[in-house]
Amino acid sequence: MARTMPAAVFQGKGRIGIREVPRPTPALGQALVKVTLTTICGTDLYILNGEHPVREGLVLGHEPVGVIEALGPGVVGYQPGDRVIVGAISPCGQCYACLSGDASQCGYSGGGYEAVGGWRFGNTIDGCQAEYVLVPDAQANLALIPDGLDDEEVLLCPDIMSTGFSAAERGRVRLGDSVAVFAQGPIGLCATAGARLAGASLVIGVDRDERRLELARGMGADVVLNHEEQDVVAEIKRLTGGGVDVAIESLAEQATFENALRSVRPGGTLSSLGVYSGHLPRDAFAAELGDHRLVTSLCPGGTERMRRLMSIVAARGLPFRELVTHSFPLTEIEAAYELFASQRDGVMKVAIRP
Amino acid sequence: MARTMPAAVFQGKGRIGIREVPRPTPALGQALVKVTLTTICGTDLYILNGEHPVREGLVLGHEPVGVIEALGPGVVGYQPGDRVIVGAISPCGQCYACLSGDASQCGYSGGGYEAVGGWRFGNTIDGCQAEYVLVPDAQANLALIPDGLDDEEVLLCPDIMSTGFSAAERGRVRLGDSVAVFAQGPIGLCATAGARLAGASLVIGVDRDERRLELARGMGADVVLNHEEQDVVAEIKRLTGGGVDVAIESLAEQATFENALRSVRPGGTLSSLGVYSGHLPRDAFAAELGDHRLVTSLCPGGTERMRRLMSIVAARGLPFRELVTHSFPLTEIEAAYELFASQRDGVMKVAIRP
Amino acid sequence: MARTMPAAVFQGKGRIGIREVPRPTPALGQALVKVTLTTICGTDLYILNGEHPVREGLVLGHEPVGVIEALGPGVVGYQPGDRVIVGAISPCGQCYACLSGDASQCGYSGGGYEAVGGWRFGNTIDGCQAEYVLVPDAQANLALIPDGLDDEEVLLCPDIMSTGFSAAERGRVRLGDSVAVFAQGPIGLCATAGARLAGASLVIGVDRDERRLELARGMGADVVLNHEEQDVVAEIKRLTGGGVDVAIESLAEQATFENALRSVRPGGTLSSLGVYSGHLPRDAFAAELGDHRLVTSLCPGGTERMRRLMSIVAARGLPFRELVTHSFPLTEIEAAYELFASQRDGVMKVAIRP
Amino acid sequence: MARTMPAAVFQGKGRIGIREVPRPTPALGQALVKVTLTTICGTDLYILNGEHPVREGLVLGHEPVGVIEALGPGVVGYQPGDRVIVGAISPCGQCYACLSGDASQCGYSGGGYEAVGGWRFGNTIDGCQAEYVLVPDAQANLALIPDGLDDEEVLLCPDIMSTGFSAAERGRVRLGDSVAVFAQGPIGLCATAGARLAGASLVIGVDRDERRLELARGMGADVVLNHEEQDVVAEIKRLTGGGVDVAIESLAEQATFENALRSVRPGGTLSSLGVYSGHLPRDAFAAELGDHRLVTSLCPGGTERMRRLMSIVAARGLPFRELVTHSFPLTEIEAAYELFASQRDGVMKVAIRP
Repeated sequence: MARTMPAAVFQGKGRIGIREVPRPTPALGQALVKVTLTTICGTDLYILNGEHPVREGLVLGHEPVGVIEALGPGVVGYQPGDRVIVGAISPCGQCYACLSGDASQCGYSGGGYEAVGGWRFGNTIDGCQAEYVLVPDAQANLALIPDGLDDEEVLLCPDIMSTGFSAAERGRVRLGDSVAVFAQGPIGLCATAGARLAGASLVIGVDRDERRLELARGMGADVVLNHEEQDVVAEIKRLTGGGVDVAIESLAEQATFENALRSVRPGGTLSSLGVYSGHLPRDAFAAELGDHRLVTSLCPGGTERMRRLMSIVAARGLPFRELVTHSFPLTEIEAAYELFASQRDGVMKVAIRP
Repeated sequence: MARTMPAAVFQGKGRIGIREVPRPTPALGQALVKVTLTTICGTDLYILNGEHPVREGLVLGHEPVGVIEALGPGVVGYQPGDRVIVGAISPCGQCYACLSGDASQCGYSGGGYEAVGGWRFGNTIDGCQAEYVLVPDAQANLALIPDGLDDEEVLLCPDIMSTGFSAAERGRVRLGDSVAVFAQGPIGLCATAGARLAGASLVIGVDRDERRLELARGMGADVVLNHEEQDVVAEIKRLTGGGVDVAIESLAEQATFENALRSVRPGGTLSSLGVYSGHLPRDAFAAELGDHRLVTSLCPGGTERMRRLMSIVAARGLPFRELVTHSFPLTEIEAAYELFASQRDGVMKVAIRP
Repeated sequence: MARTMPAAVFQGKGRIGIREVPRPTPALGQALVKVTLTTICGTDLYILNGEHPVREGLVLGHEPVGVIEALGPGVVGYQPGDRVIVGAISPCGQCYACLSGDASQCGYSGGGYEAVGGWRFGNTIDGCQAEYVLVPDAQANLALIPDGLDDEEVLLCPDIMSTGFSAAERGRVRLGDSVAVFAQGPIGLCATAGARLAGASLVIGVDRDERRLELARGMGADVVLNHEEQDVVAEIKRLTGGGVDVAIESLAEQATFENALRSVRPGGTLSSLGVYSGHLPRDAFAAELGDHRLVTSLCPGGTERMRRLMSIVAARGLPFRELVTHSFPLTEIEAAYELFASQRDGVMKVAIRP
Repeated sequence: MARTMPAAVFQGKGRIGIREVPRPTPALGQALVKVTLTTICGTDLYILNGEHPVREGLVLGHEPVGVIEALGPGVVGYQPGDRVIVGAISPCGQCYACLSGDASQCGYSGGGYEAVGGWRFGNTIDGCQAEYVLVPDAQANLALIPDGLDDEEVLLCPDIMSTGFSAAERGRVRLGDSVAVFAQGPIGLCATAGARLAGASLVIGVDRDERRLELARGMGADVVLNHEEQDVVAEIKRLTGGGVDVAIESLAEQATFENALRSVRPGGTLSSLGVYSGHLPRDAFAAELGDHRLVTSLCPGGTERMRRLMSIVAARGLPFRELVTHSFPLTEIEAAYELFASQRDGVMKVAIRP
């Protein structure tokens, strides 16, 4: 008798719903995790809107918190009952990309090599907006939740925090740097926290929403600027005597991208997290003569990354929890998607409980 | 009695000519260098065409080879008669930009801080297409020519070689990397040499001119591709199993920029040398999810940089000399500009002898 | 009539005293700074003890806080009356070492090239335990004190903070690292602060003095260990599951050095600040097969470094002031040396007021 | 009927011999490789001499070239009959160490974490001086030999070349650096090649054996120095104006280590490959005030590393083959060990053919 489980299934553009799907069994190298908490990502909205195509019938979601239910052959060092998270990106650790230090671009061992290859949950394999999720390459991806941290505290680690922090890391924020973070949504807020944690002595948070700017202060912004109320580029140049060492951009709109670029000092770095394509204005980019760097990063995953992030959550007491503004049972995930897409009621991140 | 000297003076858009101008005297921290050889850069053409505005009356040129004539107060360790080169970019070594490791973006000690600030010769101060040139911050910029190297061998160090090599350096080419260099003009050829010297095991040179592709082989390209004869992006992906580690772009046209970007593997780097502004196509840039880096660099200058480049010239015997295809006396520099601008007769670089 | 000033003059091994010496006049590129506050460094004790030889008659001291009294020719962007600090290390910015990014090993423009060359104050030229100090290469070394910071708050920037922070920087502490700092004297305490600021999620402070361990907590240590009460290497391995990512050592005794080395995980880094020579035990160093790095650093100096450090002091409110435990007028500096050397009365750093 | 195979088995200190041992069968994640060529390493001698303890009965050898015989479950992208090499170090790709970028210190997935953990062949599991070798974590370790390369050409990739090149990489040799390589045995010769390939403009090879110095020239040394005939430290300082940017040491004797350290310029790096423990002389190390770095590295392994090395062998035509001076059938491996240990007859590396 095949057991089933409820899951949030993509049913074509604009349509998602809870369906009973077969409960998976872990094969070689895999783990089955009972999901205790997950959330919805902006990327899930892209999928729902048809902007990022996936196959119909796919279970969505890539931010799992849960408990190991069963382990496939070859996975050692873990036990059923262990509380774990798994990164949104699940690298194999063994392919050319992984062994080259580009695990997010994982080609899965023995497979091909294409951009964003490491993103599998809710993209190329079933995701975690379900009662259970099958973790591929479990040895490289299961991460034990340290004692003393509850599910809510680690919910942002798999994606939002990893992505946000990577902006500061890839941008190589150093002790005493000035950093401006454009757009203070969940990822931008984590980028703000990351820049502060990495040693910036001036962190400038930019948004137009006063509540988000207030959250930015809580995450470590020294100064907040409302771009609807002032010329932020001019103000940043004034505050820094010519531009920030690193600008971080997490919105992916042309105006934000340009403002971020114009805020960078000569020789500085734009660290861009948006899902972007656009124009590099000649003046803002100093016609490529400004020794600028433009770096992008896709959410790093894997056991060790998750361990690091959870160690920061445990040690530094940042208000990541405040970013989770609403909670829904899995059965009401359609309403959760609707709320999250609408961006109303001050929604930041939505907790989903299977 | 004021002494004068002949110099190539910018006289407004499209007009350059030899004029007698006052021969300068070195003040504090400066050196007067008698120019024995110099050349014309693509940037000089931008100036002549009015694309890069400079004041009328300016002496052009930023690639000096010569002999120290006199030293101002405070310059130590050099003697009149020493053979020297000076980088196109002349950093002060003492301002915030210089002390931050961004010497090309030099703000001159005590001054401001703006992009491309380190480029002074033939831009904000008189250049070296003249009998003499005044070197600012001479202590940080005079570089002794090693015995055994003649003027022609070091002529490309001040700009072309420094810029071309910086593409490999800023792109962080590593042992065993694959690198594609788009456009094999003088800078691209030096980038090809730089990628090879930095340890790439596959250097791919791209151009449409067969003679330049032949030169590319001489500079270290393992494979050359004519982009008018084949789909270079497809061929590069085939040769590398998915894309190069580093693509270098030195032409600054949208098509070249896009091809370069599309040739980079996920996680790889585009190192761009063009004087560019343009579009980042969403697919080519993996919507910013490909962990790509886009780095730019302006020709590093200064004593130590020039010393390193000349040590490579002396040790490695690369055919940099072949890039100097024509020679003119300073008095005929108008003809030299005309030839260089026309790109006819296989001109690569033009030697100018005051 | 030659003006004189009081200064702490080295008079041979074990002898220091206040003498009237000629008040200097700034020559080309120099500044004269009226010292308002300075301190005594452990290195001054080495000099006094004859361990680090300097010429008799030298004015000691290398940590100046003061006001610009006069500027020599060629120093621009500053005014008499400006409040400034100058780093203990005063690089020229223009020699091979400086232009290679090794400014602490400065050879002074045009001069030679030897280790520790950038340390001039109180070593090769007169220092700042005096009413006035002459600043060489002032353009690269004067650093304006930001409004709102008083002398006491920036007193540690020239040496102690720069050195301590450099341990974390050279050790490349990353977000989420574990770091152990051995010895919590003034430099170790600043290293503790630096490790925390650089994003470590676990900072372990080690000492045997409970008051210093308490200070370590205030500087950012998450855990403190008393090495007289427990096996710190075993405890560090237990806390970290195998060793820290980075160990910092600031005492320069063989036992401390070995403990630090044994605390590092395979692949980790020992960042050493001590004035050390000693033994690399085969087991602790994994017979050189552990992919370990051993990095050393001499206090970075220069305008930009000082600016960064002061920006951190201004922004982060760390209790650097608590490290200054005693205060003396310049005229009583002999008593200050005696107290500092004795390490009694809980002395950490001693303020000297000319 | 259990099949057996001949293998070189360690039988206690000083004793090695060919024994028939069970031919292994690949389990989950493993591959069975038929060895076509292998060699003996200096580390094998340490084992034989009892300096590095391993269990009696172990098959020695960690440098396999061969053909895939069979694949265990979970290994994809390879076929029996594929020609492969496997690195001496065989990381799992999935443990904390591997995911932290320290694959040589691999703890095997789920296991512990100790130094040199990634070295398994002929250390903690049976090695490749046998007819067949079982490859653990095959997905991360099998590396296809490119068409056109024969066994002899890739024999040094698994260990000697990877180790030697890592000295230049970990030492961060840059374009135009000066590098001195102390001791021109097989690893030192590969370090010489690596330094040259990485862009050094001056590579100095040091040894006392004229034939090795001649080989050093073939591998890329610009200058060779016989340390029995001259004061190499003085000569290196003369040639470089103060010391090399990077010194590489591959002998692990105190005198060599000290010479290497004394040859480094202030701010430079000592990259050490020896199996070393010893003394850091205060003067040579500038009492830790010279901003020196001391880096060590254990032979990087894994599929991608091997691919890179073979791409360099294929592209650059260096005379790695000349390092293989003698050849023996597996059955005569005792004689091969004896010759290799004696260092007579100009032996460099010995080919072993099962």
